[in-house]
Amino acid sequence: MSKFRLDEVDHQILDMLIDNTRIPFTDIAKKLLISAGTVHVRVKKLEDAGIIQGSSLTLDYEKLGYSFIAYVGVFLNNTSQTKFVLERISEIPYVTVAHVTTGKFNIFCKIRARDTKHAKDVIYMIDDIEGVYRTETMISLDESINDKKRLMHTIFKNM
Amino acid sequence: MSKFRLDEVDHQILDMLIDNTRIPFTDIAKKLLISAGTVHVRVKKLEDAGIIQGSSLTLDYEKLGYSFIAYVGVFLNNTSQTKFVLERISEIPYVTVAHVTTGKFNIFCKIRARDTKHAKDVIYMIDDIEGVYRTETMISLDESINDKKRLMHTIFKNM
Amino acid sequence: MSKFRLDEVDHQILDMLIDNTRIPFTDIAKKLLISAGTVHVRVKKLEDAGIIQGSSLTLDYEKLGYSFIAYVGVFLNNTSQTKFVLERISEIPYVTVAHVTTGKFNIFCKIRARDTKHAKDVIYMIDDIEGVYRTETMISLDESINDKKRLMHTIFKNM
Amino acid sequence: MSKFRLDEVDHQILDMLIDNTRIPFTDIAKKLLISAGTVHVRVKKLEDAGIIQGSSLTLDYEKLGYSFIAYVGVFLNNTSQTKFVLERISEIPYVTVAHVTTGKFNIFCKIRARDTKHAKDVIYMIDDIEGVYRTETMISLDESINDKKRLMHTIFKNM
Amino acid sequence: MSKFRLDEVDHQILDMLIDNTRIPFTDIAKKLLISAGTVHVRVKKLEDAGIIQGSSLTLDYEKLGYSFIAYVGVFLNNTSQTKFVLERISEIPYVTVAHVTTGKFNIFCKIRARDTKHAKDVIYMIDDIEGVYRTETMISLDESINDKKRLMHTIFKNM
Amino acid sequence: MSKFRLDEVDHQILDMLIDNTRIPFTDIAKKLLISAGTVHVRVKKLEDAGIIQGSSLTLDYEKLGYSFIAYVGVFLNNTSQTKFVLERISEIPYVTVAHVTTGKFNIFCKIRARDTKHAKDVIYMIDDIEGVYRTETMISLDESINDKKRLMHTIFKNM
Amino acid sequence: MSKFRLDEVDHQILDMLIDNTRIPFTDIAKKLLISAGTVHVRVKKLEDAGIIQGSSLTLDYEKLGYSFIAYVGVFLNNTSQTKFVLERISEIPYVTVAHVTTGKFNIFCKIRARDTKHAKDVIYMIDDIEGVYRTETMISLDESINDKKRLMHTIFKNM
Amino acid sequence: MSKFRLDEVDHQILDMLIDNTRIPFTDIAKKLLISAGTVHVRVKKLEDAGIIQGSSLTLDYEKLGYSFIAYVGVFLNNTSQTKFVLERISEIPYVTVAHVTTGKFNIFCKIRARDTKHAKDVIYMIDDIEGVYRTETMISLDESINDKKRLMHTIFKNM
Repeated sequence: MSKFRLDEVDHQILDMLIDNTRIPFTDIAKKLLISAGTVHVRVKKLEDAGIIQGSSLTLDYEKLGYSFIAYVGVFLNNTSQTKFVLERISEIPYVTVAHVTTGKFNIFCKIRARDTKHAKDVIYMIDDIEGVYRTETMISLDESINDKKRLMHTIFKNM
Repeated sequence: MSKFRLDEVDHQILDMLIDNTRIPFTDIAKKLLISAGTVHVRVKKLEDAGIIQGSSLTLDYEKLGYSFIAYVGVFLNNTSQTKFVLERISEIPYVTVAHVTTGKFNIFCKIRARDTKHAKDVIYMIDDIEGVYRTETMISLDESINDKKRLMHTIFKNM
Repeated sequence: MSKFRLDEVDHQILDMLIDNTRIPFTDIAKKLLISAGTVHVRVKKLEDAGIIQGSSLTLDYEKLGYSFIAYVGVFLNNTSQTKFVLERISEIPYVTVAHVTTGKFNIFCKIRARDTKHAKDVIYMIDDIEGVYRTETMISLDESINDKKRLMHTIFKNM
Repeated sequence: MSKFRLDEVDHQILDMLIDNTRIPFTDIAKKLLISAGTVHVRVKKLEDAGIIQGSSLTLDYEKLGYSFIAYVGVFLNNTSQTKFVLERISEIPYVTVAHVTTGKFNIFCKIRARDTKHAKDVIYMIDDIEGVYRTETMISLDESINDKKRLMHTIFKNM
Repeated sequence: MSKFRLDEVDHQILDMLIDNTRIPFTDIAKKLLISAGTVHVRVKKLEDAGIIQGSSLTLDYEKLGYSFIAYVGVFLNNTSQTKFVLERISEIPYVTVAHVTTGKFNIFCKIRARDTKHAKDVIYMIDDIEGVYRTETMISLDESINDKKRLMHTIFKNM
Repeated sequence: MSKFRLDEVDHQILDMLIDNTRIPFTDIAKKLLISAGTVHVRVKKLEDAGIIQGSSLTLDYEKLGYSFIAYVGVFLNNTSQTKFVLERISEIPYVTVAHVTTGKFNIFCKIRARDTKHAKDVIYMIDDIEGVYRTETMISLDESINDKKRLMHTIFKNM
Repeated sequence: MSKFRLDEVDHQILDMLIDNTRIPFTDIAKKLLISAGTVHVRVKKLEDAGIIQGSSLTLDYEKLGYSFIAYVGVFLNNTSQTKFVLERISEIPYVTVAHVTTGKFNIFCKIRARDTKHAKDVIYMIDDIEGVYRTETMISLDESINDKKRLMHTIFKNM
Repeated sequence: MSKFRLDEVDHQILDMLIDNTRIPFTDIAKKLLISAGTVHVRVKKLEDAGIIQGSSLTLDYEKLGYSFIAYVGVFLNNTSQTKFVLERISEIPYVTVAHVTTGKFNIFCKIRARDTKHAKDVIYMIDDIEGVYRTETMISLDESINDKKRLMHTIFKNM
């Protein structure tokens, strides 16, 4: 577990950035009654410590025509191929998450696709990787929760 | 599928924001040889269209002591309870994703926890929701890919 | 097995009707060098014997916006409810086929829906029938074969 | 989804054809108080649009001695063989439906056979196709619903 | 393991009776060059020791119209009901064998029936016993071996 | 189904033989108030028709030290090997029953063995047959019903 | 992870005790060329630190007539009953190990019994605990490895 | 079952040794009002009979940093490789128990590891053994019972 210690000011800065990474440091400073320089120093410290790795947009995939989500369990011929297969999987942009797992699957992926036909193409890309023995797919009928912000707030609250 | 049309300039702005949401609009403007005002207008247009919903930090959960990831399949007594159970699940901050799914589970969740003991506590929180009949857990031994940026770039390239 | 005997003329009439039920009897008569009255008598005989039960259109469901196909396995609380549940299922027009089966499911259905969201609604209609304990869904990524004509020709060829 | 628009007359014509494809156009015309020529034009339009693809007989398979129905799940050695295997399957007339599916099977078929022994022969034909790794069979004890007419009426009512 | 000791003569008598219980003792005596009285004494001894419990006919079930064989796995609500359920099962003559088992089922039965429809009726008789929670059926496509005689000969050879 | 017709006398003779194959024909004759010759003729007729195939002893396997019963599901590499594998299985006397089955197994066997160690040896004999890919075993904790006599009486009662 | 540091002498003492807890301290002292008092102090230190919790005999269960080993997976009605059920399980001496687990079971136990019949009794004791919904049993055909000594040596070697 | 007979004194000696193998024989003697020599003779007799095979320490694995426990089910390519694979497995010290099992797995192991990453390494060591086809892992969230002493006391009480 991290030895890194955060004080109240760090927490408040993080709480604001979690909700909107694009908030100007001057706005943060004004709200916390500190100088913008202090905000800058604190964020720099969190970045240098590797806690903040970067930032990204939250897109509406439905609006973009990518409403199809599926989980694909991958069986390998041999676990010694895990690293090789993961590298091939990482070349398929429609795979957004991949885990090495316990249980019946060797690798477990999350994919986003345009529709059933596109999903079939993506699944076949995975199936065709050398070393992949079989895949099993579970389709999402509705993504009801996709929100890391609650976790982020909770983590910093508990530190 | 979205009727929304993006031109080359939109694509280039999005490509930069996907990699770093905090990049100043003046930097984007300089790189694309357009005015900062144009950048502002274009981003506003993407936000108003609902394509950009917001932004978020990318944290190093391992450094923060939250290295335990599991997928929890939830069986309900009755699917008419789905909405109610999802609302209860959404009150557990350690659940970052939840889907209504086909196949053997009714709901499928991703959780992050500190360690085996904490994971057990989180799983029991889900188990104890009224209407939840049983859960089955699959533990991640290693999160090898967690990257939506490749997908985002690909989506805009294909539009 | 049917005691009903078909001669060569019956076979040839059936072969033509299987491919196109709307072919005029005069066309059949001309091709087989028999009278239209004979065609009429023979078809009447097959209908009276109950072998021909009727006729139906072949529609292009994709063009009609119903491209989503899934198989839904239904578990009942008790098999004594089978008849009751089948009657409720038969009130859902999106269920086109339903079997009482061996193996893990009590009832096994085929459904057609417009998309993932509509499929979820149809599955929930089944889930909400009194006596239904749980359902499991398998989604079709592609309906590659849907053709009873080959079977029909083969049956009559073998009789 | 289809852009094709149907008016009330189209609906009424389709409703009659769905129940009996062999109904003479003059009968339809009389019932709807329109000319037989209009019926002809409307049906032609639906055929040209590809919505009506053809027609087929409804047979009593039980009477014909083909009362045995089973679903066969097919596992392939490799999904790159899917197209080849589907072509081989389509040469077996006893397979009336075949889907590429998600979940544990690669291909999912419906077969009709005369009895247990014949079913075994048909299953072995599938098993013996090159690229087929294993099959699993679920037998229908009773085909309680097999009726696309309710769906067809509902589709046109909803358009 | 039995303390009972058999000598060579016992073995030869048993070998003959296993193949044909109706063989007259005088025939056995003649073949073994012993008296019919000795045969009688030896068989009596095996019966008194409880090793021979009785005898039964071997019928051709196919010829008798009972060609359908299935195995039915039974799940109970509670194993305390095992004895009660087995008593109810033993009232169904179509169940010829029933075991208390390890693994997923509580009780595992073999049934013989006339055809698919009759099998469904027998399965429903089991399903309707109080305390039975669910059943799963596996159908035999072909009974290739059903022969205890090889085992009987081997047992006595090894004693 | 058999065309063979049995009268009341046949039924009564069969009922007695089912319970004890060794009952002398004179005893049967006395009970039914017919001649021993008639009994002989009737039994001969049932044997010639192939309905009675033979007779066998009922042994107490527990007393003989063979109290361990298991069911072994066999997966083959290819169903074309079914016949070959069944021939190899039929050389193992500890396998008393073997079926070609639907569902997850290709072949399903019943074995009797002396104890856990012996069962392991028998399972390994099956595993080592060429063409056998894998086996799965379910162990009987108690053989509660093993009685074909109830079925035999019922069959003849229903004829 | 333990902060406790062990030196070379501790390692050597532990290595000897792991193999034979009853070795006299004077023997250990002689081998390591240290005083028996030092051995005593070191062992006391390991006990006080809670690393050594005690000692136990290694028995030959086979010789004692307890050769039957099985793993029993337990499903609960509700995980809130876990603690209660574990307490009931801990009253059954034939259960030597019990875990709260991920995957399909809530609790996973190891049992030792005299034979199949005794195992059935032990499984039924577990089945009859209030809150236990179902159990599934996997039987050991042979306990090939049961040896914590290799692990103990390795742990101390790696510290 | 063992023919070995234990008297009351043996039982009392065993009861004390089970709880603490290091208890001096003089202490046992004092409690039982017998001579230390008698204790020595009795223990020697139990060792010579092979009932007591040795003794071992009970360590606190949690304190030693080995808090991760998992069960690993191993599928082999062929059961003829069982002995070879077990020998390879016995070279991995983190595997403390291994059984040849019935049911879906060929071999079933218990492992102890430091954490998720270490567990992955241990599972891969097993996966990489020649002849191992696949593994499936179930992770312990909590080892609630690990106590053979209750069993040992019960065994001797029942003898």
